[in-house]
Amino acid sequence: MSATPEPFTYDALPGRVVFAPEAARERLGGVLDDLGARRVLAIFGESERPLAEPLCAPLEDRVAAVFTEVRPHVPVEVAQRARAAARDAAADAVLCIGGGSTTGTAKAVALESGLPIVAVPTTYAGSEVTPVWGMTEGQRKTTGTDAAVLPKVVVYDPVLTFSLPAAITGPSAMNAVAHCVEAFYAPRANPICSLMAEEGVRALAAGAPAAVERGDDLDARSLTLYGAYLAGAAFASAGSGLHHKICHALGGAFDLPHAEMHTIVLPYVMAFNEPAIPGIARRVAAALGPWGGDGTAIGLQRLGRAVGAPHSLRDIGLRDEDFDEAVAVVAEKIPHDNPRPVFQDDVRNILDAARAGAPVAAVGADGRSPASR
Amino acid sequence: MSATPEPFTYDALPGRVVFAPEAARERLGGVLDDLGARRVLAIFGESERPLAEPLCAPLEDRVAAVFTEVRPHVPVEVAQRARAAARDAAADAVLCIGGGSTTGTAKAVALESGLPIVAVPTTYAGSEVTPVWGMTEGQRKTTGTDAAVLPKVVVYDPVLTFSLPAAITGPSAMNAVAHCVEAFYAPRANPICSLMAEEGVRALAAGAPAAVERGDDLDARSLTLYGAYLAGAAFASAGSGLHHKICHALGGAFDLPHAEMHTIVLPYVMAFNEPAIPGIARRVAAALGPWGGDGTAIGLQRLGRAVGAPHSLRDIGLRDEDFDEAVAVVAEKIPHDNPRPVFQDDVRNILDAARAGAPVAAVGADGRSPASR
Repeated sequence: MSATPEPFTYDALPGRVVFAPEAARERLGGVLDDLGARRVLAIFGESERPLAEPLCAPLEDRVAAVFTEVRPHVPVEVAQRARAAARDAAADAVLCIGGGSTTGTAKAVALESGLPIVAVPTTYAGSEVTPVWGMTEGQRKTTGTDAAVLPKVVVYDPVLTFSLPAAITGPSAMNAVAHCVEAFYAPRANPICSLMAEEGVRALAAGAPAAVERGDDLDARSLTLYGAYLAGAAFASAGSGLHHKICHALGGAFDLPHAEMHTIVLPYVMAFNEPAIPGIARRVAAALGPWGGDGTAIGLQRLGRAVGAPHSLRDIGLRDEDFDEAVAVVAEKIPHDNPRPVFQDDVRNILDAARAGAPVAAVGADGRSPASR
Repeated sequence: MSATPEPFTYDALPGRVVFAPEAARERLGGVLDDLGARRVLAIFGESERPLAEPLCAPLEDRVAAVFTEVRPHVPVEVAQRARAAARDAAADAVLCIGGGSTTGTAKAVALESGLPIVAVPTTYAGSEVTPVWGMTEGQRKTTGTDAAVLPKVVVYDPVLTFSLPAAITGPSAMNAVAHCVEAFYAPRANPICSLMAEEGVRALAAGAPAAVERGDDLDARSLTLYGAYLAGAAFASAGSGLHHKICHALGGAFDLPHAEMHTIVLPYVMAFNEPAIPGIARRVAAALGPWGGDGTAIGLQRLGRAVGAPHSLRDIGLRDEDFDEAVAVVAEKIPHDNPRPVFQDDVRNILDAARAGAPVAAVGADGRSPASR
């Protein structure tokens, strides 16, 4: 751990993080005051109304307008209506209360207007600490990075996540674990980011299984939300690697559920990369706590199954007849800077194992699935 | 470590850090290009000329002026001349190459002009990653915090520290250790900052003794500079606690050498606080590596002596006849939020032990020196 640091570049991102149980109820007014926000556009989705409305009620004098037309992937016409709502209300800040799509809608407003965002996340998406925005026009998704969309203040209140269903909690915590794991070797990896990623894995591995079991366990929810924050921060700083490229390509081509796909694929990618990054693998295994006792990839798979995630890409809708196309689509997106060179056969092996939900131990240290040996 | 996080607020500060051997020689041009800087005011002290001039030579077309009147604590008339130099040169950026006073002079320019700073530290001061500025008018020192003075880019090049004398290397690395240790319980302490502080202690404890022994040991210099960066970042975020209040009061009243004083006092403050912060003490002890095997306070004292620092406040010029005044001066500055309540007798005991350079083990877990029992 106190090995000489490799040369690195680290772009620290600004922002205030307020983390406390009941912070949303008790601190939002003060946060808006500190920003001098007097005419706020509040954004939340219809499903988030039960959480968001009681938070907005005491801020009534400062909430100038409410926008609830939140859609996944932020369709450009929704973005335009949200921007118009901000203009019509002469808003001086945006308050978003909800998951990744809600934060994304606020970012679309900030991208055009430069308005400061106060984000109150209710899921483990992590996008509230990244400067990355995304919008879709028809089937085409455009993403970009802009400092203007990075929220100025993020208020993390684990109490707001009590109602997150177990079936979402588990995979979405694993999605955060994937951000942490890849931060160790992603293109802009650096030792600061690795510290956050390591702590993120520790918190998520300790918190997520209990949060799935008991949704209103404050300790478990606090750990998981804290881990999700660190995952987002690490991802924002380090970028993404092989695993994310695979999932992005697969998700785009076959519309597989995002968090579940990440949970399934991650152990196989780790099994493949492990021989090239023994030091990182040891760090991740240690951070996984009891889950990591038999190795990193096995630990990630056990943790994913312990939080109730599906086991295979087949389970979440990848059809066998699409398998060859999946290999081709992913092979096109292989990053050249992965710690271990990736050939088309490797992609096939990783996806084959993930399709079947094979025990990752069977993939072996050479990254090959039994079928290919 | 994966304990549920206590409620916290964390203000992440922006900035790019470039860390690599030879980064100053190889990367400065690119860094200035990225900022669009075409008319740079270069600041370095006369003693830093041998390091700084060869770095500036290849940037000649971009260096519009050079300012070398660097003085400790940035006298206000020096600040004014530096500002005038920036104006006369129509500078669009400030490049400072040197220690804390050089960085401080650049900050004085940025405070007035808003010009971006590129800092190339040659010591372990850490001020290059803080938004804190300071200036002196006669005997009066004014300090403040302003986002404008936080350098936009810091280029850490361990090769530049090869020539730092052993007698400065040791205490100034220990001064960085003190920043790290107090970051765990300072007023704005938070878990992110604690991660950086912990890594900082690890790096400094591993690097400093070897850097003192072999000034041109690249690994040792890299670790120590990396630790000094983390110490500055942790301090900037968490603020300072009892130890820093004591040293600030003592230093102001008796003009004791800064880094040496920190090295001497820190173990006694830790011995005093240890019973109130057992978890933090264990973390620091573990990060100290072999030095921490017998406990945190003992480890800090052993490390300080291993890097050749003086042992007692007497050694660095505190006269016995000033002792009562020292106690009075420090007692006035006791923070109310120290993890363990501090009474005037405690101050006397801590200072008495530090004056004598008593083995910290003798101070005991109750923080009392043998004399007072």
